[in-house]
This record gives sequence, C-alpha cells and structure tokens, in this order.
Amino acid sequence: MIIIGDEILSGRTKDANLNHVALWLGGLGISLMDVRVIPDVGDVIVDTVNECRAKFDYVFTTGGIGPTHDDITAENVARAFDVPLVQSEEAVAAFIKEIGKENFTPARARMTMVPEGAILVKNPVSIAPGFQMENVFVMAGIPRIMQAMLLDIEGRLKGGAITQTRAIHVFEGESFFADVLADVQEQFGTVSIGSYPFVRDKRYGAVFVLRSTDAMKLEEALGQLKGKITDRGSEYFDGELD
Amino acid sequence: MIIIGDEILSGRTKDANLNHVALWLGGLGISLMDVRVIPDVGDVIVDTVNECRAKFDYVFTTGGIGPTHDDITAENVARAFDVPLVQSEEAVAAFIKEIGKENFTPARARMTMVPEGAILVKNPVSIAPGFQMENVFVMAGIPRIMQAMLLDIEGRLKGGAITQTRAIHVFEGESFFADVLADVQEQFGTVSIGSYPFVRDKRYGAVFVLRSTDAMKLEEALGQLKGKITDRGSEYFDGELD
Repeated sequence: MIIIGDEILSGRTKDANLNHVALWLGGLGISLMDVRVIPDVGDVIVDTVNECRAKFDYVFTTGGIGPTHDDITAENVARAFDVPLVQSEEAVAAFIKEIGKENFTPARARMTMVPEGAILVKNPVSIAPGFQMENVFVMAGIPRIMQAMLLDIEGRLKGGAITQTRAIHVFEGESFFADVLADVQEQFGTVSIGSYPFVRDKRYGAVFVLRSTDAMKLEEALGQLKGKITDRGSEYFDGELD
Repeated sequence: MIIIGDEILSGRTKDANLNHVALWLGGLGISLMDVRVIPDVGDVIVDTVNECRAKFDYVFTTGGIGPTHDDITAENVARAFDVPLVQSEEAVAAFIKEIGKENFTPARARMTMVPEGAILVKNPVSIAPGFQMENVFVMAGIPRIMQAMLLDIEGRLKGGAITQTRAIHVFEGESFFADVLADVQEQFGTVSIGSYPFVRDKRYGAVFVLRSTDAMKLEEALGQLKGKITDRGSEYFDGELD
C-alpha cells in the first residue's frame, strides 16, 4: 500500500486508510506486506510504484487524485507505466450524467485523466474515479470514498487462504511468558505468535495473538499455550482486552 | 520512519506513532520524508534499515524491542550494521537498580542486548532502553514509551528552519479553486500549497494549507490566495475546520 500525501508526513492529517485496507485485505485472504507513506513528489511516486508493482502481487495507492494542482498521482502512475495520460470517455460520461455538461469544468475534466489502458474504479460518492493499471489500484485519499472504491476492486482480486486469529490475554508482564511463547512458536512454524504488552489500570498485561491459515494447527498451538500458562501457575483470559 | 510490526499490517492494531513523530519532527525543523510499515521479518528489517539510513539524515524505528521471541529489531539492526549484538552494562545496571537482581530474568536480559557501539535511548517508563546506531534511532512501539524516548533523542538531532503553516477554508468544492490555487502555487515556489476537500453537514468544502520555512513568502502567498478567492466572489474562513 502506498499512501501518497504531504499532509500525512507533516502530521496535519492522521491516516485513516491503512487500518481499513489491512482488515479488508485480511478478509480476502491477502496479506498486507509493506506500506509506504510518501510525499507529493512526482519522481518519488514513480519510483515507489515501480518498485512495489514489481515486488508485490497487488499495489494499492491512496491520495492525490483530486482536481487541484497538488493532485499528481494519475500523471505519475502514467509515467511509471510509460504511457500517456488520456481522457477517459467513461469518466466524462459519468460526470456529465451526474452534474450536467454545464458543470463539467476544466478542474473536473482533470479528474477524468487516467493512464492509457487504465480500467476505472467506480466512485459512487463523488464520481471522480480511481483506476487500475495492471496490478496497481489507484484510489482516493478521503476515507469514505476510498472505502467505497474497495467494493468495486474486491471482485478483481484473487485471495489465498484466510488467516484466522485467536487471542488470549494475561495480567502479568510479557517477560514472564517469553520462554513459553518461544517454545510454542518453535513447535508451530505455520502459526505466527505475537505478544503485545499493555498497561491497564496500572496493571501490566499482554495479549498473545496467534495467526494461521491452518485452523487445526492454530487450535493446537492455542491449546498448548494455554496449558503452559496454566502449568506455570498463571491465569489467562480468552480474547483480546476490551 | 520505519514502523516494525505484523500487528499493524494485519490490522489488529492501529498505529499511533506516525502522527506523533511527524509533528515532533516538524517542531524540530526536520521533515518526515518517508514512512515504511514492515513485518517482523529479519531480512526485511535489515534491508529497510540499510536502505533508509543511506538515503535519509535520520531514521527512526518503532516496535520489536520487547522481551519475547517476536521482538527481533535489535538483532536485525545489529545485522544491518554488521556488528555483534552485545549486552549493555548500562542497561543491566538500570534494570537491577529498578527491579533488583533477583528479578533480572533471562527475558529481561534480552532487552539489554544492543548492537555493539550503540548509544542507549532512555526509557523512563519501563526501563528497557531504545538505542542509537549512527543515524538510526530504535524505539519501542508502545506509544507512551516511544513518546518518552523522543525526549531523550531530541537533543541529538540537528534540525533546519521550522516549517510554518497557515490554513484557510472555504465552503465550496475545491474544484472551483483549482485555477486560483495553481496560479498562486506557480508564483511561490518556496511555499507548498495543499488542498484538502471535506464534507461537513452535507456541505462540500476544502481546507487550503500553505507551508513554508520562509515566513514572509508564506504571508504573501496567503494574502494573494485570499484576494483571489474574494475576487471570484467566494468567502474564506481563517484556520482549519474545527
């Protein structure tokens, strides 16, 4: 995922898309492997898109497809693919249908420009489309619009097995469980075990999260972990901390 | 900034550090140029640290310095610098002073291992230190601890001119101001102008944010933009939208 936007890097805006995309991909059986937050700089966009589209099955970008001078994603994705930026007749038609020919201003026309060969991604919220170039999906930065675009993209992706998650938590510092966790992790190569400490009401605790695409191994690892926690005289609680 | 953590990529946890670091750096006159979110995978940590420390003045990592098997940041930063992981006597002393020798377990000892040559970063919250290797600062992932570590790091950084920000907003779609914004942007190369659309109470609007290290140019650009907005019969409001 490539988050394009000076406003995130300056701290003016908090990104709200990463977490949504992560959970959405998880539900499709696709693992999010890498996220970049990059500035509104053409060469950086070109280089990052080219690096990521070669390296990963899918690339999702957010931001920079509006009507103003600082919206430079489309032109730089076109550069990344070495194709011209062209007007999408389909996007023009969608705009004219919705707002009338008289309101189809040059600023709006700018939002109908896509790399040659792009397949549009529908924007039911505000018309201006995203687009797909091969394995790269270009979306708006506004969360409500981005989320709507994901619905149109969903059918175009091929996911793998769904990763399932089980969690338990304890009210002791994670240090005390380091051996136990390492031991279970060593036995179950296909289960990833994470330990996430927390402090709640001045009590130290930790959430242990087990993730796997293999449901049987997942339950087996969880059972072992629970047994080992009990064996050392500690108590565990199911699920995440609220 | 390198955010190390499967839990962010899986969507289990929402990152809360990026925005804090961005604002903190801004206050020091340092621009955040690139953020990566990467998994708990040794080779990825090594490659990303090496790429970023060569490319940027400073690198800040968060996450993966706890006591459990999935905390692999220190060993992989050591690999990135091609030095051994060694025990920090200073960190051992800090632990023993705080919790006593009898509580200095192997899991805690793990948190005193740093790359050879590292300078510690103090952790007033839970002792386990971060560390600095040349231009790379390794910090905890827990926001409260990371924020405390920044205080110790602050004096080690050399910032440039502070970027100042001015913002105004309008209650019309940003499309209508595309020409005006592009025009002002073209005249003021040292001022970066961003346009961020919003919808509030079903009204379309946009925030225009001007940023520059040159306070005079910033005011001049803002004045021009305001004038042009008024000239086209629109109204602007000072500041960001609440």
